[in-house]
Amino acid sequence: MSAPISSYVSQERLWHRHEQLALIGATATGGVNRQALSPEDVAACLQLVEWGQALGMQASRDAAGNVFLTLPGSDADAAPVLTGSHLDSQPTGGKYDGVYGVLAALEACEAIRAAGLTPRRRIEVVAWMNEEGSRFAPGMMGSAVFAGVRRLADIEAVQDAQGVRVGSALREAAEALSAIPLRPLGRDVFGYVEAHIEQGPLLERLGKTIGVVTGIQGKRTFQVQVQGEAAHAGTSTRAERRDALMAAVAMVGALNVRMHDELDVLKFTIGRFSVVPNAPSVVPSGVMFSIDLRHPESAVLLELGDAIEAICKANAGPCDVSVKELSKAMSLEFPADMRKRIRDSSNALGISHMDILSTAGHDARYVHEVCPSAMVFIPCHKGITHNEEESITAQDAAAGAKVLTEVLVGLALS
Amino acid sequence: MSAPISSYVSQERLWHRHEQLALIGATATGGVNRQALSPEDVAACLQLVEWGQALGMQASRDAAGNVFLTLPGSDADAAPVLTGSHLDSQPTGGKYDGVYGVLAALEACEAIRAAGLTPRRRIEVVAWMNEEGSRFAPGMMGSAVFAGVRRLADIEAVQDAQGVRVGSALREAAEALSAIPLRPLGRDVFGYVEAHIEQGPLLERLGKTIGVVTGIQGKRTFQVQVQGEAAHAGTSTRAERRDALMAAVAMVGALNVRMHDELDVLKFTIGRFSVVPNAPSVVPSGVMFSIDLRHPESAVLLELGDAIEAICKANAGPCDVSVKELSKAMSLEFPADMRKRIRDSSNALGISHMDILSTAGHDARYVHEVCPSAMVFIPCHKGITHNEEESITAQDAAAGAKVLTEVLVGLALS
Repeated sequence: MSAPISSYVSQERLWHRHEQLALIGATATGGVNRQALSPEDVAACLQLVEWGQALGMQASRDAAGNVFLTLPGSDADAAPVLTGSHLDSQPTGGKYDGVYGVLAALEACEAIRAAGLTPRRRIEVVAWMNEEGSRFAPGMMGSAVFAGVRRLADIEAVQDAQGVRVGSALREAAEALSAIPLRPLGRDVFGYVEAHIEQGPLLERLGKTIGVVTGIQGKRTFQVQVQGEAAHAGTSTRAERRDALMAAVAMVGALNVRMHDELDVLKFTIGRFSVVPNAPSVVPSGVMFSIDLRHPESAVLLELGDAIEAICKANAGPCDVSVKELSKAMSLEFPADMRKRIRDSSNALGISHMDILSTAGHDARYVHEVCPSAMVFIPCHKGITHNEEESITAQDAAAGAKVLTEVLVGLALS
Repeated sequence: MSAPISSYVSQERLWHRHEQLALIGATATGGVNRQALSPEDVAACLQLVEWGQALGMQASRDAAGNVFLTLPGSDADAAPVLTGSHLDSQPTGGKYDGVYGVLAALEACEAIRAAGLTPRRRIEVVAWMNEEGSRFAPGMMGSAVFAGVRRLADIEAVQDAQGVRVGSALREAAEALSAIPLRPLGRDVFGYVEAHIEQGPLLERLGKTIGVVTGIQGKRTFQVQVQGEAAHAGTSTRAERRDALMAAVAMVGALNVRMHDELDVLKFTIGRFSVVPNAPSVVPSGVMFSIDLRHPESAVLLELGDAIEAICKANAGPCDVSVKELSKAMSLEFPADMRKRIRDSSNALGISHMDILSTAGHDARYVHEVCPSAMVFIPCHKGITHNEEESITAQDAAAGAKVLTEVLVGLALS
């Protein structure tokens, strides 16, 4: 019996590429700030393209800012196998979230090339545009447009905190990437596999190397705008004030009570809270805050998400409040056949595995809408993520890339 | 009987100068953004100097960024009479807060010159550096250093939100103002009179034109730093989180309960509330919020201000919190003799007046430490201030300038 294709996976090369990408947008305190469509994000895409082209892969990009590298197959008419993740990060993000899935996919292609294999289907490595949603909310924009879940025109209108639109940032990125041929949005895909760090503590805690992702928990995101009136901190009485901050604090307090889940399964987060004019001696005239709500059971997610507007209104005091839902994604389950491929490959390689629910959202959520999809998780130290301290081991990274390689080969040969 | 000196006050000139200064840092929505030591703030000082020099006044400045215009007296050895206010504004400020006191002082000098009077004491018009404290907190920096209440080195170390230090901003402003001679910090002053808009609704409501300010209510300011840990909004459980925003919201809620004053005399304001990293899908790692606490009774101010740290610590949950007091100014009363001068001048001119407590802080607070001081208030529509809607009438502005002129003449002749 010959060595498996995945035996050509190089732990050293895979780890070294993580280190090289971590230099792009590196922060002074050990993390990465490479927000979507920033010069750093574009530079990371260009580095990826350079590595792929050195391997003989063809680069392409689409109007949604997604970047692709194609490893040709023997049957040009066969629908491709897609694999990848994202290169953008949170403002104080880690080195592995997203990056791992892209580099593991590239490493799988390295292994397939090194083994001298040309599978029937071509394999396409993708870096999706704006998964994180920290600069332009909500995230997973590139995969949403690819899958037809959102329209390009809709995401183009979204603005960042400085008033820059996605459309204008995309045009700027397109200039920097102009040497890479543009291709039409979306296409037939045979199957999609995304490798990712777990972003939770379970694999490490239970001593397993591979997480066979059963599905992704549902998520709804909201933006709450509280409008009051600016006033002098020393002269305006409480009775006269329309204090947007005090109203927003009352709303967040009441929401926190309503969202209390004894079982601690519900995830309720206010990540952004921006005050205007944000000056010490001015009663705030406005507050904008975000709500991120997640639960694996769609019924719970529907009930609690639908309660938000009434809670905000009941606590607005003398202020006005408007609640806008930015995204609404119910829980999903990946196809049993795709999950079996990951289990079987792990078993064949003697790598431990377990089933696991993804509590984080991923691009696979949207790609799942257009083709059979799956996700491979590897451990993430203490589950710390969206944090500069995020860490994984080179061994786990290589093990995940090996399983991914075997799953991709299986799909590409079929 | 000859016409009073103040009959030379020109309502038109005074109003026109307000309009001209409002162009410097004008916002699209009718207000002014001319924060301390910004290019706009410096430009406003240069405009003031140009007007003063046209009147034959001598310009000077000190190391704390305060700008002076001197109208010479007949006795160069006599301590001067000081008058003025500030030209800096809140980020979304109005056209009159501060500016009025500077332009009314300049108009008084115009009237004295036009009347052909040379009083014994010279009169100095001052524009104090950074009264507002919105860019560099706390405010009233220039007057504090002038009065010896704060050391120059202490204020130089203060940073704005972009990390720019007062020291470096002062050096930049000094370059732009280099044509104006530098003079030593502080000096003997015979008396100080500051005109200002009321920033409250009482004069307008009671139909009075002049407020004879009895004193300034006490004020304490604090900065609260809440430290948690960044985490993924979808994967970290509530039990695992150290959510700085939820801790800060609990603190603000508890503070708001403790600071509830049935009589609505206490002023409690959280004007600044800044979240890190402030991204929708990241559990916040840090929150910095400001506290502005004011009350006319020093005992109340001491008791409530001293309670803040314990309340924050009791509500920190799994986060760390540190509370730093930035400024502590007890209530003060202006000298009866100085107040009598304002009453007498108003009566002589047939202008209605009433005694009034200043609930806002002013540069007069610190100048009061080094010489007999007083303040003249004029009405401010509906008490709206620190707001782009701030408005006054040209008639009230002129009436206040006339009273100021008579008070200054009385002091300068003595």
